[in-house]
Amino acid sequence: MAGLSQVAWTWQIKDMRHLFLAAVAAASFALPIQAQDPAPILSPGEIAHAAKADEWIAIAPSDLLIMDLAPDAKGKPRRVVIQLMPAPFSQGWIGNIRKLAAAHWWDGTSINRVQDNYVVQWGDATEKKALPAGLVGVAEAEYVVSRSDAAGWDAARAMQSSAPIIPDPYAASQALWGWPVGHGKDGELWPVHCYGMVGVGRNMSPDTGNGAELYTVIGHAPRHLDRNIALVGRAISGIEHLSSLPRGTGALGFYEDAAERVPIQSIRLASELPAEDQPRFEYLSTESDSFARYADARQNRRDPFFIKPAGGADICNIPVPVRAVRAK
Amino acid sequence: MAGLSQVAWTWQIKDMRHLFLAAVAAASFALPIQAQDPAPILSPGEIAHAAKADEWIAIAPSDLLIMDLAPDAKGKPRRVVIQLMPAPFSQGWIGNIRKLAAAHWWDGTSINRVQDNYVVQWGDATEKKALPAGLVGVAEAEYVVSRSDAAGWDAARAMQSSAPIIPDPYAASQALWGWPVGHGKDGELWPVHCYGMVGVGRNMSPDTGNGAELYTVIGHAPRHLDRNIALVGRAISGIEHLSSLPRGTGALGFYEDAAERVPIQSIRLASELPAEDQPRFEYLSTESDSFARYADARQNRRDPFFIKPAGGADICNIPVPVRAVRAK
Repeated sequence: MAGLSQVAWTWQIKDMRHLFLAAVAAASFALPIQAQDPAPILSPGEIAHAAKADEWIAIAPSDLLIMDLAPDAKGKPRRVVIQLMPAPFSQGWIGNIRKLAAAHWWDGTSINRVQDNYVVQWGDATEKKALPAGLVGVAEAEYVVSRSDAAGWDAARAMQSSAPIIPDPYAASQALWGWPVGHGKDGELWPVHCYGMVGVGRNMSPDTGNGAELYTVIGHAPRHLDRNIALVGRAISGIEHLSSLPRGTGALGFYEDAAERVPIQSIRLASELPAEDQPRFEYLSTESDSFARYADARQNRRDPFFIKPAGGADICNIPVPVRAVRAK
Repeated sequence: MAGLSQVAWTWQIKDMRHLFLAAVAAASFALPIQAQDPAPILSPGEIAHAAKADEWIAIAPSDLLIMDLAPDAKGKPRRVVIQLMPAPFSQGWIGNIRKLAAAHWWDGTSINRVQDNYVVQWGDATEKKALPAGLVGVAEAEYVVSRSDAAGWDAARAMQSSAPIIPDPYAASQALWGWPVGHGKDGELWPVHCYGMVGVGRNMSPDTGNGAELYTVIGHAPRHLDRNIALVGRAISGIEHLSSLPRGTGALGFYEDAAERVPIQSIRLASELPAEDQPRFEYLSTESDSFARYADARQNRRDPFFIKPAGGADICNIPVPVRAVRAK
């Protein structure tokens, strides 16, 4: 190994922060990199940023769940926005969640569990709060969607994705219709547990949970939960208000002291808010040309920081780009 | 979908927390599950817990880096313990890190960057602190280890692992010699970026960093960084003191206000502490029979909560079990 002089090191240290900034910008959705040749190699984030307007799909306010936690210790508001999955995925549980939100059932409940590299979980810590009428039980069969169900949902878009299908140790995986999904050998599809995905806590099988007890992933993708618990959406804004909470010191990260729980002020569908108060988000169509280029760039990083492109990426490392059109 | 009666739901809610606890215990290192038949199916954590004493390998105090942050807002101490990688991996950078720790160079530096689902980074925010003498520059070639180098390191153990080699979208991957590694087509080995792994911030290529600026992964495994940045170890205790820090609001999660930075009181090799103050940790040998069973159980969850075993797991979802023999 060649030794570098102290002078060289001093220079490197001086510029390290600046250049590490530039370097990591290429590794995430961040600042544009200064192109250094006439045909710039775009980072994945830059490719998404440059996508055409009609490649972005608006998320309906009725598919946005707005969770307002109590303000933090400095009085700053803490809002988490969750996008609910569209048909054909998990609609039984999502129907329950719409009813729970409409009934304002979560207001006054709390975040009760924060387990490092795993999940944040919320719901009624007293386990005594009466549920609204009309919730349904959902069968385990609904953890997966058959190919025919899926095609029936939107024949024009079904199975026409240009996004790659990537074999991984769990399943052939793909970004499809805006979501990370697994493909079964018999043509089933199911959503997968990536960072930020929101799921439904449940009892032992055959119970599948009713949607009142929810969790979000705050660590490495726990893909062993795929097809074993219902996924209903993903946090698209404000997940840092969950992922940075103190870890619970009880078993499985439950808070041992009730005072540690983080109060939930309210959970609402955005469609219940006055139109001018509704946040607006869009996601990059996973069936678009720009998404195909973005996915390729996530698999083969060619932007300046990288020396050896990986030659692949798992589905949770190709997150679907989401942008706020109007933050609220 | 069959509807469940309100009575049934009430019962489920009542027991939901209890049973979700039991369920998730099976999904992590946690409480033993009550066996329900004469041949109990053990969870991965239970398999590790039941491993024989000689399947655990003590970590030398000279391979433990003890990072003490300033106490938290309530005055509680915050200690993070990092295990440095053994030869043949990354020894050039690790030699520098030993020198930096011996010089107490990090004392008074700070955590400067916390980017959600990515990294926590620490070092000298002023970028002006003089480095100790004797640091070396390390070549990019050292990001990987050739098979012959590896065999020379410990011929008796080399390549005799019973841990599975798992193809994934990045590389054939394996838990080897206690660490998650990738296998190249030409016989190279390299450490991979799993949750908790610690790496060396660097400048643009061909700089490889000197080890003074370090980061740890706090999100989904950023495997695109493999072979592009040096990895030097992993957090084995106290990572929650890093992963739960407030996210920085500047570009790439840098703290915008110097007051947000978290002071580092000291970083020491445990071997520098008085013997009675040295924490003691062990890891489960990845070449042991118990590890093979543990890895199989991580890939195929058969404990009571699970309905459909995944049939596989990526290397970062088979974390090497580590236990504190004497916490300090």
